[in-house]
Amino acid sequence: MKFKAERAVLLKALAHVQSVVEKRNTIPILANLMMVVKDGALTLTATDMEIAVVEQVAATTLQDGAATAPAATLYEIVRKLPDSAEVELEHAGGDAPLALRAGRYVTSLMVLPVDDFPSMTAGTLPHAFKLPAQLLRGMIDRTRFAISTEETRYYLNGIYLHAVPSPEGPKVLRAVATDGHRLARVEEALPEGADDIPGVIIPRKTVLEARKLLDEAQEDVEIALSDTRIQFTFGTVRLTSKLIDGTFPEYERVIPRNNDKILRVDKKDFAEAVARVSAISTERSRPVKLALDVDRLTLSAASPDQGSATEELDGGRVAYSSTPLEIGFQARYLNDITDQIGGEVEFLFSDGSAPTVVRDAGDTTAVYVLMPMRV
Amino acid sequence: MKFKAERAVLLKALAHVQSVVEKRNTIPILANLMMVVKDGALTLTATDMEIAVVEQVAATTLQDGAATAPAATLYEIVRKLPDSAEVELEHAGGDAPLALRAGRYVTSLMVLPVDDFPSMTAGTLPHAFKLPAQLLRGMIDRTRFAISTEETRYYLNGIYLHAVPSPEGPKVLRAVATDGHRLARVEEALPEGADDIPGVIIPRKTVLEARKLLDEAQEDVEIALSDTRIQFTFGTVRLTSKLIDGTFPEYERVIPRNNDKILRVDKKDFAEAVARVSAISTERSRPVKLALDVDRLTLSAASPDQGSATEELDGGRVAYSSTPLEIGFQARYLNDITDQIGGEVEFLFSDGSAPTVVRDAGDTTAVYVLMPMRV
Repeated sequence: MKFKAERAVLLKALAHVQSVVEKRNTIPILANLMMVVKDGALTLTATDMEIAVVEQVAATTLQDGAATAPAATLYEIVRKLPDSAEVELEHAGGDAPLALRAGRYVTSLMVLPVDDFPSMTAGTLPHAFKLPAQLLRGMIDRTRFAISTEETRYYLNGIYLHAVPSPEGPKVLRAVATDGHRLARVEEALPEGADDIPGVIIPRKTVLEARKLLDEAQEDVEIALSDTRIQFTFGTVRLTSKLIDGTFPEYERVIPRNNDKILRVDKKDFAEAVARVSAISTERSRPVKLALDVDRLTLSAASPDQGSATEELDGGRVAYSSTPLEIGFQARYLNDITDQIGGEVEFLFSDGSAPTVVRDAGDTTAVYVLMPMRV
Repeated sequence: MKFKAERAVLLKALAHVQSVVEKRNTIPILANLMMVVKDGALTLTATDMEIAVVEQVAATTLQDGAATAPAATLYEIVRKLPDSAEVELEHAGGDAPLALRAGRYVTSLMVLPVDDFPSMTAGTLPHAFKLPAQLLRGMIDRTRFAISTEETRYYLNGIYLHAVPSPEGPKVLRAVATDGHRLARVEEALPEGADDIPGVIIPRKTVLEARKLLDEAQEDVEIALSDTRIQFTFGTVRLTSKLIDGTFPEYERVIPRNNDKILRVDKKDFAEAVARVSAISTERSRPVKLALDVDRLTLSAASPDQGSATEELDGGRVAYSSTPLEIGFQARYLNDITDQIGGEVEFLFSDGSAPTVVRDAGDTTAVYVLMPMRV
């Protein structure tokens, strides 16, 4: 195997693929990435056995072949090469080390047998559709914070993607995540080809890796899936992942339908007031109390060691016309939601102990549900 | 006690003083800072019993008095207030909570008795001199990396500041640090008033805190000291610290006088080559080998698991005219020194196992000594 590539091009591809390599793993081959030169094309692959990222890299291919090498080391080396360097990689086959040359710099890297590198097959992916990168970013950003990290509830450790009839009739594409304390549901118009997709749970790590690749993606992302696999294609990068084998709960039952006490408040004012009153306590799970009266919202927090804090919002910044109400939420949970909201936040309450609906007043595609805390 | 201050002014002062507060301490009062309003002036103080920082803050003082409050919480709260806010702090005395008000935001913070707040007296400081902020920054930056962190050799856990006769006669001011593997010595013209200062060892934390305050300092820094205390005055901020009670070793014996094999190499070329060849190993203490021949330097590193790397520097970038030599150094130690060097690095070698002198070819005020590693 032999090829030459520009340092900047190679670095970008290495950054993509080495990202899925688990930093702490006990199987040496999984710390390696695989390079394949075939038919004039260079492909880099890395996998953790759950996710595989494969990237086509622009290179001058000089000799077909394949080699594996430590992903993190290779990335560090290429990162430290001069900007404009041309990098040559060569492997004579078998146990021979991989040689990397750039100017007067030469590295000789240990390889592991190409045959030991695990292949992750996608199998048949009967469903395929496209989503604009911007739209997929939005679906992920507005749900991923609610993904559960509790390993015992493995079926909540991802985003549930599925197609369902909307109340108005036509099917929509939905992404849902919940950790039992909060829920986020985003829906978008169903793309062509997604009519009959199965409901799938995309694991957290896959969501995060896809989101990183989306940072650079401008165009449509191709998504293909089966019951057990999902594949995202971002231009020359392809991410294939196993899905979580479990049943996502009947989340619709959790979303209150009849909450009729409506608060509207400026997002920035609200988020900053939450941050200020919660600064009194370093305990992350202490609640912030919201006390509501006509067109007035009083936020407060208390810590037995440190004291208490209160901030009042009223005037043009708060609209509320129902009966007085007191309710408490974890500050961090409120912030996770307001981070995703633009101008105005809308809360729909039932009472001080019932699940609350939160929405962006200017965006009907996302709905958040928050469980209150006792205050 | 009662005063009003601009949020930006108060925040800056809180940032300075809360920095010395130990994040993990078992004595509650040490997590607090003290505010004193007296004679129309506001003073903030924080201490860890080794270091005290006292700052005069521009404020509208409304009532004399004093109070203590949790430094980190107060800093977090003020940080989260709007940029333009005016902050009012009020304490009625005794056990009453401290009230902080800004607009519609009110915090009530628990206090601890003012009498419990430890006072750190400087005692008499018979020596006093001034150093330009820029010069003091340079003395610290070019020595602090060599401060030992080994607690058993407590007398090396700081920078040794003292006045000594230079070989040419007149006394100079010297800062020295060493951890037994490397040594850094910086000397500057003796400022007026520093003739008879005792040799003092300034503890690492004091050095770091002083360095932070120097980030903002433009003018002369006043330094006063006795055998046991040092005090830095940066405008309205005063840092007082205990000194390390120990004897700094006879460091001059460690600095080789007769190293006659001289290598000159461009700093940037050298530092980047060290970074690249050492990228082969994630083990921090692996050596980089320097192999020298006439006007040629070959850097190399090897890792039993990963492979090896080599880079050659020659041509106009390296000047060496002595007999061939091989010597190894820890990459990190080389980088710590080259970080402080401008255009060209000068190495003075004796042989492959003897201490090596490193200098900035364009700066005679600093000398570094490096112990080689076996390669």
